[in-house]
Amino acid sequence: MTRLEVPAPYLIFLGAVRSRLDAKTGSGLVDWCRDRCAGQLRLPGCRVDLGLPDLTPAAAAATGVRTLVVGVAPLGGGLDPSWVATFEEALAAGLDVAAGMHARLAGHPTLAAAARRHGRRLIDVRMPPAGIPVASGRKRSGRRLLTVGTDCCVGKKYTALTLASELAARGVHATFRATGQTGILIEGSGIPIDAVVSDFLAGAAEELSPDASPEHWDVVEGQGSLFHPAYAGVTLGLVHGTQPDLMVLCHEAGRDTIDEYPRFPIPPLAECLRRYREAAALTNPAADWLGISLNTAALDEPARKRALEAARAETGLPCVDPMRDGAAALVDALLARYPR
Amino acid sequence: MTRLEVPAPYLIFLGAVRSRLDAKTGSGLVDWCRDRCAGQLRLPGCRVDLGLPDLTPAAAAATGVRTLVVGVAPLGGGLDPSWVATFEEALAAGLDVAAGMHARLAGHPTLAAAARRHGRRLIDVRMPPAGIPVASGRKRSGRRLLTVGTDCCVGKKYTALTLASELAARGVHATFRATGQTGILIEGSGIPIDAVVSDFLAGAAEELSPDASPEHWDVVEGQGSLFHPAYAGVTLGLVHGTQPDLMVLCHEAGRDTIDEYPRFPIPPLAECLRRYREAAALTNPAADWLGISLNTAALDEPARKRALEAARAETGLPCVDPMRDGAAALVDALLARYPR
Repeated sequence: MTRLEVPAPYLIFLGAVRSRLDAKTGSGLVDWCRDRCAGQLRLPGCRVDLGLPDLTPAAAAATGVRTLVVGVAPLGGGLDPSWVATFEEALAAGLDVAAGMHARLAGHPTLAAAARRHGRRLIDVRMPPAGIPVASGRKRSGRRLLTVGTDCCVGKKYTALTLASELAARGVHATFRATGQTGILIEGSGIPIDAVVSDFLAGAAEELSPDASPEHWDVVEGQGSLFHPAYAGVTLGLVHGTQPDLMVLCHEAGRDTIDEYPRFPIPPLAECLRRYREAAALTNPAADWLGISLNTAALDEPARKRALEAARAETGLPCVDPMRDGAAALVDALLARYPR
Repeated sequence: MTRLEVPAPYLIFLGAVRSRLDAKTGSGLVDWCRDRCAGQLRLPGCRVDLGLPDLTPAAAAATGVRTLVVGVAPLGGGLDPSWVATFEEALAAGLDVAAGMHARLAGHPTLAAAARRHGRRLIDVRMPPAGIPVASGRKRSGRRLLTVGTDCCVGKKYTALTLASELAARGVHATFRATGQTGILIEGSGIPIDAVVSDFLAGAAEELSPDASPEHWDVVEGQGSLFHPAYAGVTLGLVHGTQPDLMVLCHEAGRDTIDEYPRFPIPPLAECLRRYREAAALTNPAADWLGISLNTAALDEPARKRALEAARAETGLPCVDPMRDGAAALVDALLARYPR
């Protein structure tokens, strides 16, 4: 796993997105490494505001910005042709350009030529390392926690980041393992699991969390959902390769169908727990639940309390919204089961 | 889905393999398109014999052979350095070279240079088409049958090929849909599902079996196994994207652990049936079983009869070895449920 070099500070490119969900890379960077984010660049029609100064590439370069980071993640990971002129402008202004789309920046002839001309770098974050092996299924030393979801965009990455920092705050050796573009940009390393050739999916997850000291926890960012008609294969490979000792199920309170797939219901939480544990048992028969991470961002305080209580009652597990309550209750439960 | 152009006849390259399982591409070509196979080329140490004349590249070219086809499939799909000299010799003799490894022939500098020098083609069969979309989950017209397995190399491709030809013999419109290198070489088209970037796995399966007339059957070749620690993600994506109306579970009689993964038991057939149907129900709640394909190649006649009877009793489904008994019983059952 190579460490990424994306020179900070960043100018976050938002294109013309209309919802914060579609700007999840930009949001993630602002939420988790605000000090690296110096400005945002929005095209006409953009309705998202990350609360950063609006800067042109030239103005950003003048304030010391070193990289334009694409902060939007369109479904399917394509490069919107309307973005190219702005990226060329950034390269001309002396910025590198970094992105985590499936479509490689370096594979775009106009951009590749502009980067050469200006002596700048195109940094493709969603590029898996070479030489990923087929999974061996071998049990590795050290411990692993995986966040899994009822759907995409429910809080798997935020839950993992919050857990990793709470574990570190308690003096437990823990490493956040990024599996998606935003997590990789935040952490500076990781494997973009959904960009791996599918024969090597579980092998990539094995590489991501290698043998470690017996007390060490890898906190692995989950991807997709077992109940997602497009991405469940990615999720299953990640579960199998991770061999999690513990899982945290992430869910958005009130969401009852898969986002953008309204014909696909999210099963009841108890059913999700059964299905994920059954899947995980293939490579780790002892895989078990730590708790539930409930995203309650859309609820007022009374509704939020009710939702957390209902999830607790339904599952019998500790249940928190890490963004509102922190992950202390989950880490308490972890340390009760794996005392130091 | 582009049709492949691999000029026949073929010289089948077997390297130095020691077991027929490792020569499954070569075996498949001989079994399903013997008329295109003019010879075999074996390196010192090879213990497999496909029953074809042993030819050097020059001798093969002299008898009219047009392509050397790599007939072995090493785990992980790498290009063995000891093969390169033979491939160069084939190119020099005027043959094209075709292979279905993950490692691209065209990506090997020595081979690419030799191909240019001799004006021959390097044909990478395991190269997915460009522009595969993310799966939509939309229900498509026409009917689909998918062969699924308890493990790799149990007969999913042979079962699908036998079913497709039996359906055609009965006058049912049916198309074999290849998902692996051997199937693609046999059929001349298909998508190498395990070489697709994992975000697009289910999308590739949707592309592979597009809308068709209501009575038409796509008979889709399965890949891997839900119970395989390395490949289950591939299997799940293929199941979800195919949206099978019917599935046939393929199993090798007597095999009780995953091949090359002895720590991983194959669950009882009844459990396999439950797990596959539960997985398939996500995108097709009506997905159901047609029957069991039991590979009994290693058994004598009395043991074979007992194994088939035991599988019938355990599952309550029609159960045949298509390579010994044909697929008539399965097609009878299909036509009873989907009368013309």
